[in-house]
Amino acid sequence: MNYSFKNIITHKKEGKELSKEEIKWIVNAFLTGEVTDYQMAAFLATIYFKGMSAQETADLTSVYVDSGKTYDLSAIKGWKADKHSTGGIGDKISFIFSPLVASYGIKVAKLSGRALGQTGGTIDKLESIPGWNSELTEKEFIQVVEKTGLSIIGSSANIAPADKKIYALRDVVEMVDSIPLIAASIMSKKLVIDADSIVLDVKVGSGAFMKDIPTAVELSRAMVDIGKAHNRQVVALITDMDKPLGRMIGNALEIKEAWETLHGNGPEDIIDISATAVGITLVKAGIFKNLEEAKKSVMQKLKTGEAAHYLVDMIKAQGGDWSVMEDYDKNFATKNHIEIKAEKDGYMKFIDAQQLGFLAIELGAGRKVKEDHLDHAAGIYLNKVSDEKVQKGDVVMTLLSNKEPNASWNEMAKTSFDIVSQPFEEKTIKEIIE
Amino acid sequence: MNYSFKNIITHKKEGKELSKEEIKWIVNAFLTGEVTDYQMAAFLATIYFKGMSAQETADLTSVYVDSGKTYDLSAIKGWKADKHSTGGIGDKISFIFSPLVASYGIKVAKLSGRALGQTGGTIDKLESIPGWNSELTEKEFIQVVEKTGLSIIGSSANIAPADKKIYALRDVVEMVDSIPLIAASIMSKKLVIDADSIVLDVKVGSGAFMKDIPTAVELSRAMVDIGKAHNRQVVALITDMDKPLGRMIGNALEIKEAWETLHGNGPEDIIDISATAVGITLVKAGIFKNLEEAKKSVMQKLKTGEAAHYLVDMIKAQGGDWSVMEDYDKNFATKNHIEIKAEKDGYMKFIDAQQLGFLAIELGAGRKVKEDHLDHAAGIYLNKVSDEKVQKGDVVMTLLSNKEPNASWNEMAKTSFDIVSQPFEEKTIKEIIE
Repeated sequence: MNYSFKNIITHKKEGKELSKEEIKWIVNAFLTGEVTDYQMAAFLATIYFKGMSAQETADLTSVYVDSGKTYDLSAIKGWKADKHSTGGIGDKISFIFSPLVASYGIKVAKLSGRALGQTGGTIDKLESIPGWNSELTEKEFIQVVEKTGLSIIGSSANIAPADKKIYALRDVVEMVDSIPLIAASIMSKKLVIDADSIVLDVKVGSGAFMKDIPTAVELSRAMVDIGKAHNRQVVALITDMDKPLGRMIGNALEIKEAWETLHGNGPEDIIDISATAVGITLVKAGIFKNLEEAKKSVMQKLKTGEAAHYLVDMIKAQGGDWSVMEDYDKNFATKNHIEIKAEKDGYMKFIDAQQLGFLAIELGAGRKVKEDHLDHAAGIYLNKVSDEKVQKGDVVMTLLSNKEPNASWNEMAKTSFDIVSQPFEEKTIKEIIE
Repeated sequence: MNYSFKNIITHKKEGKELSKEEIKWIVNAFLTGEVTDYQMAAFLATIYFKGMSAQETADLTSVYVDSGKTYDLSAIKGWKADKHSTGGIGDKISFIFSPLVASYGIKVAKLSGRALGQTGGTIDKLESIPGWNSELTEKEFIQVVEKTGLSIIGSSANIAPADKKIYALRDVVEMVDSIPLIAASIMSKKLVIDADSIVLDVKVGSGAFMKDIPTAVELSRAMVDIGKAHNRQVVALITDMDKPLGRMIGNALEIKEAWETLHGNGPEDIIDISATAVGITLVKAGIFKNLEEAKKSVMQKLKTGEAAHYLVDMIKAQGGDWSVMEDYDKNFATKNHIEIKAEKDGYMKFIDAQQLGFLAIELGAGRKVKEDHLDHAAGIYLNKVSDEKVQKGDVVMTLLSNKEPNASWNEMAKTSFDIVSQPFEEKTIKEIIE
């Protein structure tokens, strides 16, 4: 059969379902230049308006996966679990999820990224530990998983390059916000590794890319369907990102909070998501019959702190000098501690979590451009979390930075929250989609 | 106000109406390169799916007009009339319309194009007359109109260049078939001349760009609305292009048929469209109270042949040697006359008019590529027109060519029509939209 840009875009314009061969042809023709960037822009806009069926979305994901490097984990025995977050402020769940599931004999071989926009990156956070190396060979990666139960490495440039090139075009032509294209983009980066189960943490709210629950549900459904089409057990949690996650935002700060959580001293929201994500994985792996039993076991592990050493083992196996965390205050001191105080009595309510993400970047915890130096010690400590009672004059957050203080920091901090007169209840996990 | 690609495409994606300033900004930014071709492709696709309001379409048309040369006809006294066809096979109405309206003292200053696809071009047809010059200066153009009542010149490269550049992009990204974009494209080329009235002949059927009546009505409505927004009297006729117009398809052949029509010997369909288009113009110009009276007067003029000399006067004023038409058979003889015969008794019914357009090109009457030489004598004579009774063995059409005959010509001719058992009625004018 002969394929052409004209035929394929015409099918899509007319609302016909594209075959996998058509999708493959157009993506590959774009990579070789046979389909130009302006033609691809028109095609992406057509997808934007006409949508994609579950089958088309799954096929596009396959084509993305096949365009680059994939990892064969078949040498690793037993259940392999993965977990992915769409990105939120203060999200350190991976550092809790991975050691916990590893403590049950489940393996975690995880590819992660660096900071993107207002969101910190898993790799950046782990690099707070001197010597820790995100660039393992595939063989080393598998060895660390086999030895310690888990390994986290950086996503190489050659992961789903078709998605990278298409994403760059979507970005400049304002066609990013298409559910099937977002779903295929996220899932292609997960499916390059043959994990048996994947828990997706789809953030929704002011600090997330998805601003409302219906859209988050739609994205979750699309991603779960892609997983099914690829024979993976995929479950999506839709979780609150109207507020930051936990009390700490930054790099070393988030490793520290994960460590505290692994020892039973975590904030409620982090425990809630971690226990649910781990519990779902344990049920999928057949270790527990239902989520309630699984979560009960997880809570026990957090209480005893017995899973914590899996995190340290991995970090050490990847060259990290964990001892820096043992004297945190000395090793991650910052010149400036700026206290933001409550101007009235009431209950803490975050209204712009994204702004706290951008503030953390200003403080030095992130990069504005790719080349920026990142300060692992910088960040924000939330003395008061969402719905917590505050009195006028209480410190509600502390800005930690080695940079020269700027008046705009206070402004950004103060406009990120409100103090309301009544307590309110916010569910951390909004929905579970599978 | 600051404009940006991002804001403008986002407004359009959200279904908001764009302001004229936004439309102007994005078109001009595309011309300067500030908006790239891939961004414009995404924007055009967004228009394709979200449509444009009548106001947006009128504004886009203005922006197209203002991007290039315009003609100021204010020096010409009296009513100025224009007429435009969306393109059909054997369409020689302009050569009948223009002398007829000129004979009532109305002025016709007309820009025309060359052949496009299966459709012959007005300028190509007039160039059958040796010496006839389509490239007048604006001053000469006005002088010919003042002297003879009409002038037809070629559309210069600098007419609506924004539309040309956008059309070229629409073509390669398969976004041509958008009603507002088609309407703006056609009307921009008309509005560069300040005619008081414009009759649009919107062809519909197998030989036309518009394949069905609802789409033709939609396009007509969009063009009439653009005209209104620009204070022009615009009326659209939706006319049949399931069959070729008249008996002759070619260049000199069509001038000949127009000449015969101007002397009362025209085929019914051509007379019908011509009398209606002229009649509407006469009513708009205030010369007659209603269409019926106007058409009656036009029919009388055709009978007496008194309007015919206006065509000759224009051709002579533009350097043409009309004498070639006086011994047509000698001056436009072709080496080959291929007769296509009926294989059964019945009534002639065209089923693929477009194919006859492509056949005429094969015979030498058109160009496959821009550089091709065009044979003014080549073409097709329809010995039998639509719905005409035929007997087995009758010649139904004659192919005239100076090229070496090719078996495919017979095949193309024979598959362009059918012979049906019952007579049928086809209305030439399907609807009038104003």
